[in-house]
Amino acid sequence: MKIAVFPGSFDPITKGHEDIVRRALPLFDKIIVALGTNSTKSYYFSEEERLSFLKASFADDPKVEIDRFPQLTVDYCKEKGADFILRGLRNSNDFNYEVSIAMLNRDLGDGLETIFLLTAPEYSYYSSTVVREILKGNGDGALFVPDNCQQLLRDAQAKR
Amino acid sequence: MKIAVFPGSFDPITKGHEDIVRRALPLFDKIIVALGTNSTKSYYFSEEERLSFLKASFADDPKVEIDRFPQLTVDYCKEKGADFILRGLRNSNDFNYEVSIAMLNRDLGDGLETIFLLTAPEYSYYSSTVVREILKGNGDGALFVPDNCQQLLRDAQAKR
Amino acid sequence: MKIAVFPGSFDPITKGHEDIVRRALPLFDKIIVALGTNSTKSYYFSEEERLSFLKASFADDPKVEIDRFPQLTVDYCKEKGADFILRGLRNSNDFNYEVSIAMLNRDLGDGLETIFLLTAPEYSYYSSTVVREILKGNGDGALFVPDNCQQLLRDAQAKR
Amino acid sequence: MKIAVFPGSFDPITKGHEDIVRRALPLFDKIIVALGTNSTKSYYFSEEERLSFLKASFADDPKVEIDRFPQLTVDYCKEKGADFILRGLRNSNDFNYEVSIAMLNRDLGDGLETIFLLTAPEYSYYSSTVVREILKGNGDGALFVPDNCQQLLRDAQAKR
Amino acid sequence: MKIAVFPGSFDPITKGHEDIVRRALPLFDKIIVALGTNSTKSYYFSEEERLSFLKASFADDPKVEIDRFPQLTVDYCKEKGADFILRGLRNSNDFNYEVSIAMLNRDLGDGLETIFLLTAPEYSYYSSTVVREILKGNGDGALFVPDNCQQLLRDAQAKR
Amino acid sequence: MKIAVFPGSFDPITKGHEDIVRRALPLFDKIIVALGTNSTKSYYFSEEERLSFLKASFADDPKVEIDRFPQLTVDYCKEKGADFILRGLRNSNDFNYEVSIAMLNRDLGDGLETIFLLTAPEYSYYSSTVVREILKGNGDGALFVPDNCQQLLRDAQAKR
Repeated sequence: MKIAVFPGSFDPITKGHEDIVRRALPLFDKIIVALGTNSTKSYYFSEEERLSFLKASFADDPKVEIDRFPQLTVDYCKEKGADFILRGLRNSNDFNYEVSIAMLNRDLGDGLETIFLLTAPEYSYYSSTVVREILKGNGDGALFVPDNCQQLLRDAQAKR
Repeated sequence: MKIAVFPGSFDPITKGHEDIVRRALPLFDKIIVALGTNSTKSYYFSEEERLSFLKASFADDPKVEIDRFPQLTVDYCKEKGADFILRGLRNSNDFNYEVSIAMLNRDLGDGLETIFLLTAPEYSYYSSTVVREILKGNGDGALFVPDNCQQLLRDAQAKR
Repeated sequence: MKIAVFPGSFDPITKGHEDIVRRALPLFDKIIVALGTNSTKSYYFSEEERLSFLKASFADDPKVEIDRFPQLTVDYCKEKGADFILRGLRNSNDFNYEVSIAMLNRDLGDGLETIFLLTAPEYSYYSSTVVREILKGNGDGALFVPDNCQQLLRDAQAKR
Repeated sequence: MKIAVFPGSFDPITKGHEDIVRRALPLFDKIIVALGTNSTKSYYFSEEERLSFLKASFADDPKVEIDRFPQLTVDYCKEKGADFILRGLRNSNDFNYEVSIAMLNRDLGDGLETIFLLTAPEYSYYSSTVVREILKGNGDGALFVPDNCQQLLRDAQAKR
Repeated sequence: MKIAVFPGSFDPITKGHEDIVRRALPLFDKIIVALGTNSTKSYYFSEEERLSFLKASFADDPKVEIDRFPQLTVDYCKEKGADFILRGLRNSNDFNYEVSIAMLNRDLGDGLETIFLLTAPEYSYYSSTVVREILKGNGDGALFVPDNCQQLLRDAQAKR
Repeated sequence: MKIAVFPGSFDPITKGHEDIVRRALPLFDKIIVALGTNSTKSYYFSEEERLSFLKASFADDPKVEIDRFPQLTVDYCKEKGADFILRGLRNSNDFNYEVSIAMLNRDLGDGLETIFLLTAPEYSYYSSTVVREILKGNGDGALFVPDNCQQLLRDAQAKR
């Protein structure tokens, strides 16, 4: 069984993330969209909110599983029986960063392989950072997140 | 009337910023150098100090207006009747970041166009970050800011 | 009068080129799309074909002038009274190349300024090279050139 | 059946190419290493030599098929029933070029997806160009090609 | 006497840093690995821990001196009689950042020259950030630091 | 004795090349500026012209030797007893290319080390290609080459 983990902090998930997962589905039997929770960073949305956004986004697809993990990505992949990490690439700055992480995971994870898809041009400037900036400026950040979680995000924003 | 907004946090303005604005003046009827104040970041210089640096830098040119804005850049541009955003590009890392912001503003701002000039080679390594690092190390950061605001910056630094 | 020159070899013009020119029109009184002919490179389309593509592409807009020039770009700009060069930027590889050319033109051309717009994401992978590759592989390269010159390009291709 | 095409001109194949194909094998049922022959470029090794290098390199693996194709990559993929193109990424310059090609193939090929793996660090500076430069300088280029085709390459070089 | 300063925050030193220093030794009479302490950033390891890692890493080589400095790098170099700064380059993102710092130091330091070596491919994804992420995830970060300080780092980590 | 080879095709040498050599002189006992002649490329200036430009440029400095070499760079360095290759870096595109060559030379040349200096900002857009383009357009390319060889270049150009 071919399982890929799509790890991230998803603060919040964007249409770019969603697009990568959906386009990668034909390659795998299961994709686990997994929220890393071992970071000491502070986030805009709570862990529960970010998880609920992920669940809403992929509620229609039984091949996508949503999860959270506190340990190193390589340890989590081993535990889930995943041989692949899935990542999207938007631009050449991304590239150098992603190389570091992928090579690290390959070394630490006994050949754990990272598979890259290119972000579609229309989503190439979408990022969680951009969505948060729009929300901070009272703009409609929901336009940049998956259709299925736009209402959830607007509700979460209204409560802040 | 062709109006461009040159937005930033200007902590502090550098000779690189000044150069972009002055070189872009022949293209526009007015350039508004606008301090974005909706950020939750903390700054080295206060908002008042940063504004005073901007005013001193362009006091000689009536086509340059200084302002501050709390809202999204696109909303501010609409309010001011500005059809253009002006930005400088220093290197290829800048480029990928600026693309994201420009594409976002284009979508949110109904075709609001971002115009780029290249930072002159002699200023290409000037940045607000570099100036702050020099100031923290007790170096003379004033060498990197516009001539017209060097004294103001030295005064502000002396008071810290 | 604000005049910009948009120089290139246009072998052939693409929708990306067209988009840059049309989006830049509000900034200038006239844009001259100018075919540089001093190169020793060999081309896929003849100079006459490339010129006819340019003319067809902008036949609807009186503010766009089509021309060819054998001299250095800076000399041509001076002759035409143009104070600006217009260029599009697609990605960070482009960026480093364009910096060299722009700085050169600034030095040789007494402050001649290059104005950059970002290629729209949907056209960011369009290039004359890509169109030629498609044509060599018997694909329909006309999909990538301006609507107004698609028929001309198909005709030119059919005659080869 | 999951089929990927790994297209290239392979002049000659390097250990970097080989590594990408072998690491991608767990993802696919078949990988077709396919020599594009529609180019007008001139090559160092003949088409027959380049094909023989490819065959020798993967003679041990029945999941790898060697082929050549004169048409556009997207047309070839359709003909072979391949839904995926496989590519390696070495550095950020590669990245911008590969984005163009992948986006083109996606548009022309009805969603044909390009899957990227990162070249392992130890092979990240290997390229066909580097091998040819070494051969032209009478160095031992065979060190940079797959073990299984080193003898073939030395023989081909000796005959020149 | 040719003296180079290798400045950094070394939080912690990696095998990549060590490799740059050892490979540069034939060029210089002395290399001072110098911990900058004027930053307002917060660190994972204390200043004392980071210094002890540096000392352990180069205890075997009398040409390497370990030091700390609170002032600007250029002022420190002048004080130590060093005409060169030594830096490693890993990827093209590094490059743009390092250019800024090197040009700054050149201007502020009366021609103080920065000498660059390329990080070896096998260490090109090593960074202090990566080591800290592994430590935070309870992984064995010691694998990425110089052999001579692995025990020290494991001890420091155990005490946290 | 510390010897560095500064290899290139120098078609023609630029002020950027000259600047790198002169700034690197304090590091080495001798720098050999060496014209590689094993390329199958065609050149704008003849080998003799390019050599004469090099000789004129550094006639004032006995620590700089001018030479030509037909073999691989690593073989030439070994023959000359040079442990170092000297190279300049202008921008991040350069970087990825230079990494490939440096890593190759390190492997082929038993640890032969490449030392990089950054091109000064004012010369960062100078390149042999740019000089040739200016010459082809009847511009004064001599402005971009070392003062000591400007007359030679103008003479060579006049004879074409």
